[in-house]
Amino acid sequence: VSLAVGVDLGGTKIAAGLVDTDGTVRAQARRETPGTAEAVVDAIAGLVRELGAHDAPVGIGAAGFVDEARRRVLFAPNLGWTDVPLADLVSARVGGPVVLENDANAAAWAESRFGAGAGVASMVLVTVGTGIGGGIVLDGALVRGGFGIAGEFGHVPLVHDGRPCPCGQQGCWEQYASGGALTRAVREQLGDVDVAAAIAAGNPVALEALDGIGTWLGAGLAAIAAVLDPQVVVVGGGVVENGEQLLAPARAEFRRRLPAADRRPVAEIRAARLGPAAGIVGAADLARRGA
Amino acid sequence: VSLAVGVDLGGTKIAAGLVDTDGTVRAQARRETPGTAEAVVDAIAGLVRELGAHDAPVGIGAAGFVDEARRRVLFAPNLGWTDVPLADLVSARVGGPVVLENDANAAAWAESRFGAGAGVASMVLVTVGTGIGGGIVLDGALVRGGFGIAGEFGHVPLVHDGRPCPCGQQGCWEQYASGGALTRAVREQLGDVDVAAAIAAGNPVALEALDGIGTWLGAGLAAIAAVLDPQVVVVGGGVVENGEQLLAPARAEFRRRLPAADRRPVAEIRAARLGPAAGIVGAADLARRGA
Repeated sequence: VSLAVGVDLGGTKIAAGLVDTDGTVRAQARRETPGTAEAVVDAIAGLVRELGAHDAPVGIGAAGFVDEARRRVLFAPNLGWTDVPLADLVSARVGGPVVLENDANAAAWAESRFGAGAGVASMVLVTVGTGIGGGIVLDGALVRGGFGIAGEFGHVPLVHDGRPCPCGQQGCWEQYASGGALTRAVREQLGDVDVAAAIAAGNPVALEALDGIGTWLGAGLAAIAAVLDPQVVVVGGGVVENGEQLLAPARAEFRRRLPAADRRPVAEIRAARLGPAAGIVGAADLARRGA
Repeated sequence: VSLAVGVDLGGTKIAAGLVDTDGTVRAQARRETPGTAEAVVDAIAGLVRELGAHDAPVGIGAAGFVDEARRRVLFAPNLGWTDVPLADLVSARVGGPVVLENDANAAAWAESRFGAGAGVASMVLVTVGTGIGGGIVLDGALVRGGFGIAGEFGHVPLVHDGRPCPCGQQGCWEQYASGGALTRAVREQLGDVDVAAAIAAGNPVALEALDGIGTWLGAGLAAIAAVLDPQVVVVGGGVVENGEQLLAPARAEFRRRLPAADRRPVAEIRAARLGPAAGIVGAADLARRGA
């Protein structure tokens, strides 16, 4: 099979692409995410038709917990879903086979195959957007976890009894190191400004907040490295567009917080390469492999 | 191959066993750990001879970082070693092939194959002794990490800028949830008592300290589950001999700290079954598989 369709299903939009075996996106299409699961299935089927890919395998990366068999979305707060058999619903409407995966897992797979983790056996992707997500590839295989929920990095408890998180816990990493945390830190001091613009303008408060986010990012990466010992950490998501302003403090704190850092190889921290298309590319590749 | 030798190399003793394909230890022998690497190699070769297993495969589980190729001990603070090519040194002295592995990884493999994790695809072993160690088995395979150092659970940073740890970091999990932490908590209040005896006698201070260790154990397990999503967590090490007095508060805190615990399957927390022989059994099985 050469071409496959990748679908990135988020709470606000559905993006789909026709993807080549080398990860190139040949064509793309997108729609707003409709309000019901039935309408989402319609929209995905429509996107597959629009891409002219009726019999191609379809991979869907969904923002939510996906069951072990990769057929059902167990829980997707951004979609308002609990237990939707999405793969079978889409499969009944399109010609090719359908594979479902968590969106961050799909993106991790893409970075591992075609992006910043290419050629690396063991890597993690940490996506720093509004929250923090991620995925794990170990020994060349995507790690899904016992219940399909591995790599929920944003909710690693980093500060015991720390800041409250909408997930119900306290001290979750994403309360300290995400785009949401950056926005909050900047606006606490500057009021309701455009954070990206303030950073671009070199506002010292905004730059200091970004440095702080990077530092917290590195602290959490040390926790992940203590568990997983990746060779490479790929950082994706919108906040990584700040480049070294985010990654330099992250690297420094990572090294500072890593146990026995002077006695072990230290994982390299790299920016993601595939950008927002990673979810599409990874989902398509997983569908092509039927895996 | 039916019989294999497993060697558990620690800072104070070397234990070896002749192990059957079903994980049964047919014979055991042990020696004190000598002071130099050369003498350790002599001792291991002597134990293999003593067990009458000259041509059997030999698996060594060593308390330290083991390189990716599983031939060298990179760093072993309890042995005082830096970069010792142990597998090749032993191989030159015994008849069978030699495989080297981290001791906690070997124990995790044993619990996964023959113990509390038998039949479970994705599990972690967390050993609660003086410190905290562990190992990871995902989709039926031992996870070694990119540099062979995965599962360094004791040094997961659980409390930001928390208690100092000899590793150089602060707030490491083992400063809160280990046998060492238990001893310190009890002796801070009761003076230089026998902690196990105080617990056995039902001393309320000792029991409360044990409950607190269990609670911290559960808090750290929530961090591990957010990353790895195991189906089962097996708790081993000396402290688990306290049974439900340790595990009940651990389970309660684990559930309380797990993100979205009411929306996802929750990992089961079980006591290890193989006891101190786990390292021997796992190392032998890994040697038999040549893996």
